Amino acid sequence: MNELALIEKIRKQAGRNALVLGIGDDCAIFRPRAGEDLLFTTDQSIEDVHFTRLLGAAPIGERALARSLSDIAAMGGDPKFCLVALAAPAKHEKWIGEFFGGLLGLARRTKTPLAGGDLARSEKIYCDVMVCGAVPRGKALRRDGARPGDELFVSGRLGKSWKRRIQPRLALGRYLRGKATSCIDLSDGLSLDLHRLCLASDVAAELDRVPVAPGSTLDRALDGGEDYELLFTLPAGRKAPPGTRRIGRIVRGTAGQIKLKGQILVPRGFDHFAEV
Amino acid sequence: MNELALIEKIRKQAGRNALVLGIGDDCAIFRPRAGEDLLFTTDQSIEDVHFTRLLGAAPIGERALARSLSDIAAMGGDPKFCLVALAAPAKHEKWIGEFFGGLLGLARRTKTPLAGGDLARSEKIYCDVMVCGAVPRGKALRRDGARPGDELFVSGRLGKSWKRRIQPRLALGRYLRGKATSCIDLSDGLSLDLHRLCLASDVAAELDRVPVAPGSTLDRALDGGEDYELLFTLPAGRKAPPGTRRIGRIVRGTAGQIKLKGQILVPRGFDHFAEV
Repeated sequence: MNELALIEKIRKQAGRNALVLGIGDDCAIFRPRAGEDLLFTTDQSIEDVHFTRLLGAAPIGERALARSLSDIAAMGGDPKFCLVALAAPAKHEKWIGEFFGGLLGLARRTKTPLAGGDLARSEKIYCDVMVCGAVPRGKALRRDGARPGDELFVSGRLGKSWKRRIQPRLALGRYLRGKATSCIDLSDGLSLDLHRLCLASDVAAELDRVPVAPGSTLDRALDGGEDYELLFTLPAGRKAPPGTRRIGRIVRGTAGQIKLKGQILVPRGFDHFAEV
Repeated sequence: MNELALIEKIRKQAGRNALVLGIGDDCAIFRPRAGEDLLFTTDQSIEDVHFTRLLGAAPIGERALARSLSDIAAMGGDPKFCLVALAAPAKHEKWIGEFFGGLLGLARRTKTPLAGGDLARSEKIYCDVMVCGAVPRGKALRRDGARPGDELFVSGRLGKSWKRRIQPRLALGRYLRGKATSCIDLSDGLSLDLHRLCLASDVAAELDRVPVAPGSTLDRALDGGEDYELLFTLPAGRKAPPGTRRIGRIVRGTAGQIKLKGQILVPRGFDHFAEV
């Protein structure tokens, strides 16, 4: 199968959608609606870094899209479309078909049509998924809005296996628009992502408790990464939204400093460029 | 240097720009202008597939952005911003800085601010650049508008070395808005890209002559790829825009069929998934 035939096959898999122009030209064309801000995020999924081939082509494809959708959820966005860049070894046409099968299943469930992308060959499997989302103008949830006195919440339980399916918290993100003062998704571990949120907001945080997933440990819940839950702040006294728990509060202090039950917590989540 | 420090360094390199929110949150925020369609393209640059490391970090970075800008030019767009996903081996912080130095130089010259991206580690260098552009509503140049009787034009001369700097034809693309009936950029070779344009437009083409770059050959000009010139059609009788040449015409016939001086030309440009 040559590249034109492969693109045509993916175009058929992707189906019809609301874009002005999708797969098959130099660019996709998207017509924005008045009064909306657009959100953009891109996430790489690299063989033997983010996944092993043993996971299977369809779950790898689903997961690659889910990671970017989680960023859209963290900003309170509705997904609009995605672009997928994929590089794979020779004779992987069947693998590529299954990869897009998994990816497009989640794309349909979350209304994120595939608008285009790029195919290439490489020794290892490499993928980069860009998702565009939208929020009403000025309503995006950001990392830099947490204020001393705000309370800290997290969805789900943490320290889950990276092999499970990711459920991007799109409904929760949408619900938090206009309510949360800040929000971030947990991709690299609670300790590192909370550190980032506090740095961006120029505040410190105190954790009272950490909801640990069944079969996991506190260490994995703090530093494990790959949870793809939402960590967010609400002004004091608000009820925890459904499916979420209050875990602490934002305080004045050294920007980025986190305490767990009074002890300083060192951010140890996943860092691609940590000195080791 | 850890990931937070590296992102902060790139953020400083990138400078200030007109985006609502750039590097450093889960997503970039872009506020579209009323009456514009947005264009999206993404292109991978992979070590030992699209480039060798010998080319140098800055030229590799510049080239990675230039390839996507060429797609924006082909649709007649003004670049708005870019996202850059980059994976590189350990201890490549200096290389990454130089890569972004080259990329951001072209980004400044073309007003394409870096809005965000993703960093990861990998054995080989892998990069994916997404560019967003804009055109007045309904004015994007497309592949599917060529009609029998239209004349065929190309910018520059073809078959140039892939080592040279790419000059994305943004000014020409902008000039062609509302004038050209179709347009495509030459990334995989004249024979294959013209075949694609004709397939999309359901027409055939006849070439009279091919402008060959000094020191190159007709074969390389036809099948070489990596020219990043614009191939476009105008209604019959129009003057060639500055820096372009008339090379043939669009005719009725088997969709995608191309003749050069009466002989059928087999599309042989670069195909990542050709059966070899």
